[in-house]
Amino acid sequence: MLGTEFPDDAKAQMEGGIKAVFKSWNGKKAVSYRKIEGIPDDWGTAVNVQAMVFGNMGDTSATGVAFTHNPTTGDNHFYGEWLINAQGEDVVAGIRTPSPLNDETKNEQNKNFHSMEELMPETYKELCDIRRTLEQNYHDMLDIEFTIQEGVLYMLQCRVGKRTGVAALNMAFDMLNEKLIDEQEVVMRISPAQLDELLHPILDAEDEKKYDVIAKGLPAGPGGAVGVIALTSEKAKLYAEQGIKNILVREETNPEDVEGMRAADGILTARGGMTSHAALVARGWGKCCIVGCDAVKIDFEKGFVYINGNVFKEGDLLALNGTKGYVYDKEIKMINATENPLFQRFMTMVDKFRTMGVRTNADNPDDALRAVSFGAEGIGLFRIEHMFYGKNSEKPLEKLRNMILSDSTDERIAALDELEPDIREYAKATLKVLDGKPLTFRLMDPPLHEFAPQGEEKMKEVAKRLKISYEEVKKRVDALHEVNPMMGLRGVRLGIIYPEITRVQFRALFSATAELMKEGHNPKLEIMVPLTINVKELEHQKNIANEIKAEVEAKYGVNISYMFGTMIEIPRATLVADKIAEVAEFFSFGTNDLTQMTFGFSRDDVNAIVKDYVDQKIIPADPFNTLDQEGVGQLVKLGVDRGRSTRANLKCGVCGEHGGDPDSVEFFYHAGLNYVSCSPFRVPVARLAAAQAAIKESRKK
Amino acid sequence: MLGTEFPDDAKAQMEGGIKAVFKSWNGKKAVSYRKIEGIPDDWGTAVNVQAMVFGNMGDTSATGVAFTHNPTTGDNHFYGEWLINAQGEDVVAGIRTPSPLNDETKNEQNKNFHSMEELMPETYKELCDIRRTLEQNYHDMLDIEFTIQEGVLYMLQCRVGKRTGVAALNMAFDMLNEKLIDEQEVVMRISPAQLDELLHPILDAEDEKKYDVIAKGLPAGPGGAVGVIALTSEKAKLYAEQGIKNILVREETNPEDVEGMRAADGILTARGGMTSHAALVARGWGKCCIVGCDAVKIDFEKGFVYINGNVFKEGDLLALNGTKGYVYDKEIKMINATENPLFQRFMTMVDKFRTMGVRTNADNPDDALRAVSFGAEGIGLFRIEHMFYGKNSEKPLEKLRNMILSDSTDERIAALDELEPDIREYAKATLKVLDGKPLTFRLMDPPLHEFAPQGEEKMKEVAKRLKISYEEVKKRVDALHEVNPMMGLRGVRLGIIYPEITRVQFRALFSATAELMKEGHNPKLEIMVPLTINVKELEHQKNIANEIKAEVEAKYGVNISYMFGTMIEIPRATLVADKIAEVAEFFSFGTNDLTQMTFGFSRDDVNAIVKDYVDQKIIPADPFNTLDQEGVGQLVKLGVDRGRSTRANLKCGVCGEHGGDPDSVEFFYHAGLNYVSCSPFRVPVARLAAAQAAIKESRKK
Repeated sequence: MLGTEFPDDAKAQMEGGIKAVFKSWNGKKAVSYRKIEGIPDDWGTAVNVQAMVFGNMGDTSATGVAFTHNPTTGDNHFYGEWLINAQGEDVVAGIRTPSPLNDETKNEQNKNFHSMEELMPETYKELCDIRRTLEQNYHDMLDIEFTIQEGVLYMLQCRVGKRTGVAALNMAFDMLNEKLIDEQEVVMRISPAQLDELLHPILDAEDEKKYDVIAKGLPAGPGGAVGVIALTSEKAKLYAEQGIKNILVREETNPEDVEGMRAADGILTARGGMTSHAALVARGWGKCCIVGCDAVKIDFEKGFVYINGNVFKEGDLLALNGTKGYVYDKEIKMINATENPLFQRFMTMVDKFRTMGVRTNADNPDDALRAVSFGAEGIGLFRIEHMFYGKNSEKPLEKLRNMILSDSTDERIAALDELEPDIREYAKATLKVLDGKPLTFRLMDPPLHEFAPQGEEKMKEVAKRLKISYEEVKKRVDALHEVNPMMGLRGVRLGIIYPEITRVQFRALFSATAELMKEGHNPKLEIMVPLTINVKELEHQKNIANEIKAEVEAKYGVNISYMFGTMIEIPRATLVADKIAEVAEFFSFGTNDLTQMTFGFSRDDVNAIVKDYVDQKIIPADPFNTLDQEGVGQLVKLGVDRGRSTRANLKCGVCGEHGGDPDSVEFFYHAGLNYVSCSPFRVPVARLAAAQAAIKESRKK
Repeated sequence: MLGTEFPDDAKAQMEGGIKAVFKSWNGKKAVSYRKIEGIPDDWGTAVNVQAMVFGNMGDTSATGVAFTHNPTTGDNHFYGEWLINAQGEDVVAGIRTPSPLNDETKNEQNKNFHSMEELMPETYKELCDIRRTLEQNYHDMLDIEFTIQEGVLYMLQCRVGKRTGVAALNMAFDMLNEKLIDEQEVVMRISPAQLDELLHPILDAEDEKKYDVIAKGLPAGPGGAVGVIALTSEKAKLYAEQGIKNILVREETNPEDVEGMRAADGILTARGGMTSHAALVARGWGKCCIVGCDAVKIDFEKGFVYINGNVFKEGDLLALNGTKGYVYDKEIKMINATENPLFQRFMTMVDKFRTMGVRTNADNPDDALRAVSFGAEGIGLFRIEHMFYGKNSEKPLEKLRNMILSDSTDERIAALDELEPDIREYAKATLKVLDGKPLTFRLMDPPLHEFAPQGEEKMKEVAKRLKISYEEVKKRVDALHEVNPMMGLRGVRLGIIYPEITRVQFRALFSATAELMKEGHNPKLEIMVPLTINVKELEHQKNIANEIKAEVEAKYGVNISYMFGTMIEIPRATLVADKIAEVAEFFSFGTNDLTQMTFGFSRDDVNAIVKDYVDQKIIPADPFNTLDQEGVGQLVKLGVDRGRSTRANLKCGVCGEHGGDPDSVEFFYHAGLNYVSCSPFRVPVARLAAAQAAIKESRKK
């Protein structure tokens, strides 16, 4: 394969080199990178063998790396770095701070170095021609590597360039204006991860003005970050695990630092250019990053960081403006970037191609409004349990405890009657702000034992209120204990064993609806029954709904319309979905619990196991982050298909956390779901993923 | 429909009567009976309208009930009871003790009454002719009702008669001898429940001889029973729930007593004949029962039972010989009826038609041998955990605790090395007695937290042994706590996180196999991996197996052959069974856990919920007793079909408790399983159910 024109020792060397490339696939850094990027281990790598050229043959030789547009901002400028008398590695590794390719690439750090444009104008012009040819051919921004050997230009490599979300957005619209690409392609050009990056916070410019910049570096990764200094990857991971925002500060980064870079909120390096390892990786992840900040000196032995005369140590605070390359030592305010008009224009374009709905999981008016501002078309999961958490929850929680600890149906009904106005007002507030957009109310599924009073003091308090002995309270609390609460008295089971719990919720919901109607609003209530295993459970609950609805309609003199549906979150429900759809008007797949039961994985217990399984490649990814399409996905498809075999227009959605994961969203699109529902901040990502899934499908046709 | 020949008031009466019959379908007693017999509520009932005849028109009128063979023993005698000048109800209700139909029906209680044979010889002869005609037509024993109105015989009803297991067996062989039925039909004639009844205990005749009979009654239900007196159905249920053997003692039984009769180990009534309610029901269930025991007088107010001058109260002990009708007040020994040669002959016949294998779940040589004597063809589930229970378990348990509480891989390996000889010897003992029959060894799946030392004293003991502090032991025990242990660190997950646990088991098993081979035995080892979710887990464990097998083979100088398979007990495993079968040579469906995960029902927690669900008809039966064919059954079928799509000769079995339930066995037969495995005492029942399933299928063709 290598031909015969090489002497034997050169051949051996090349063979060694090729083997080294193949071997590198299983190197620690490659494995780590794939794990983070979710690239399967069995893809393998290819090796291109090409003739060698040398950039280190004197001052007429050079090497460089360039982007055909600015990869940080997207500006239409040739953007790159070069080094005279050097090999490509020297640029990429960030060991020498490289020179600018041209005027547009000059910045504070390198403005006194000579550009290629200045020193080798002929060759630079040739390179610019190649840049144009490549862009016109590929219709995209490219990342190129070149070497000049004794005055002759050789192109080494060309690939689609990594870019920030902002750059991707700007370039896509530029190319749209130039008619190089169409709107569909614009939507395809921004990855969900890049969009997520646009949603990421930046330093508040007003606040930033108040403080002095203590050092400047290259703006390698956009956005802002405020956190404490971590001097090693290990420390950054440790901080992240403890939920402490942190900035990884390094001389330069190596591939071995990849996991620490992932864990850090921001990255600051003393050396390296815009194409150094740290810069490339950070940009790929949309992570705030400043490189080549010469003012930074690190004394690892002492654990000190010197920045222009100031001394910092691990745990001290820094703030980074990754878009400008500025470093601060103050806690600067952060703001969000979603007000960008290009972002809004892009999202409008996204919705042109999107066919699947996007809702949000929200439990109060604030979250609901925020999600609507992100484009949510309603609430796919409203958990009434949230009224028992946080502010103003004390009174309702007290009443809930009375209910949980009641000893007879009469006691329970009395406690529930007390609770009804709270449920009504809580649900009504969110129904009101959604006006016209649907709200899917999940019937109460409280972890009883968690809401029960814990500890002697709390129990004594409850005992006093209920006028029973402490021992009696303790006995009742103990009786709530379950060996496997995940598969115990939960969900609809509660509503069947204690129908009064369902009754009070229907009364509260229908009353809230009736009141809003009378106040001139347009409440769109959808009630869903959790943890269903068969249609009889639904019939049981529906009978209660019918009874209470008639009662409330008579009281208020209105006709209430609502939808009655169920969560599909137990494997059995997917198997008998055809029967369940006889009563359910919609399905909402609860993929969290469905994943738990399908795997026999308790989320409370298997985190360590899942991590180990992923590390040992027993499973490709954490099934709670990305839907297990092979297993759980089969059940989702089955549920949709069987449900619609009974009720052709059955509305199907998903309200597990997978609703905000782009890969899962694409799967749900193909499974035929009508909507996904996710947390407010994931709504734009879900909209984009849904649009891209539709475009991909239309292109296949 | 009723014609016009009746006057209006009679019509109205009849209409009322017909309505009453239809209504009775939803009467409390009918509902209760259906629940026990597993008859669906939506079958409904039919009403036959026939001309009325009257048995109460003087001494030339009479009414009676008869069986064409003796329903208790199966003897070929016409067997029945009659009453002169009475209606049918009077016989069935057991209000009057009826007279014998003929000499063969005479017994201690009624021998002085006149038989129909004596008083109405002409009509009796006519009835005998009808008996012959019916039997020759139906080829079965029939239960008939007749009325004589002023000398004219009318047949009211004819149906296949309920019978004891012994009677069923005897009659079937009689009819086989008479060539009325063939061997296939003999096998179909004994229901699994009747066979189970044959397996039920009787009083030890030798022991029984030692004691005086304190009263005699009619032998209405065969077998023996020893237990304490319960005077009400409620009390019988209460005793049963507490696991206390009990005898329900009543004046007579009503349909309202059905649940108490079910709960009782034996039934004794003061009134009623062989065709009274108590007798019919008890016989149907194969329950020991004595009726018409006039010596019994009950004072419910005082709670006393007087029997021939002795005074008993609730909680006092009685013993019943239901085959003879004898009552004792001593704790008589009980023995089993399986030594009956007709039983053995029947089981041999069963196996002629059976195509599906039957194995047993057994964990020691004694149980294994007992199961083999019941016809088990091997062990389908051997749980090594049982070496940590019961006698001689102290030392192994100590070592297991050392392993569970070890803090490092080295400590764990050291503890496991200590355990290896115990595992080897324990497994070897059962492999040895099975000689040539397969033993399916499930890799260890211990509930870690259950085996951990409980309480301060035990923990201090362990601390001393491990030379660590009590606090340290407590910390390690606490670390084992899981929120949902059912879906936590169990099964193969243990063997992947701690491969040394798998390694030591393979070493023990292969060593035991090698030693037995060298000793001239024929060990047939099948190793199965529990709780599998995908094929990678199996590959991981198989690699360990290969490594250890080579090591053991080298040490002993033998070639070991064994099968490597897996339990299919997690829903996901059924969905990816095609891939799992790439490595697994057999599947064993663990329908207990599969039911838990498919329903999201924790067996530890949902007993009360399941009971309520069955009562409220949300589910038709407890899915842990009878396989949920609609839901879990789908997954079993899917698993088998997909597994065999990869490996056509994949051996499939079931080792959940459903393996001993006749309805489930029939389902497993149709799902194409190679064998079912159940507890030793259920083995004959499973054999019969499997044979009947095969016969039913062949008849359909």
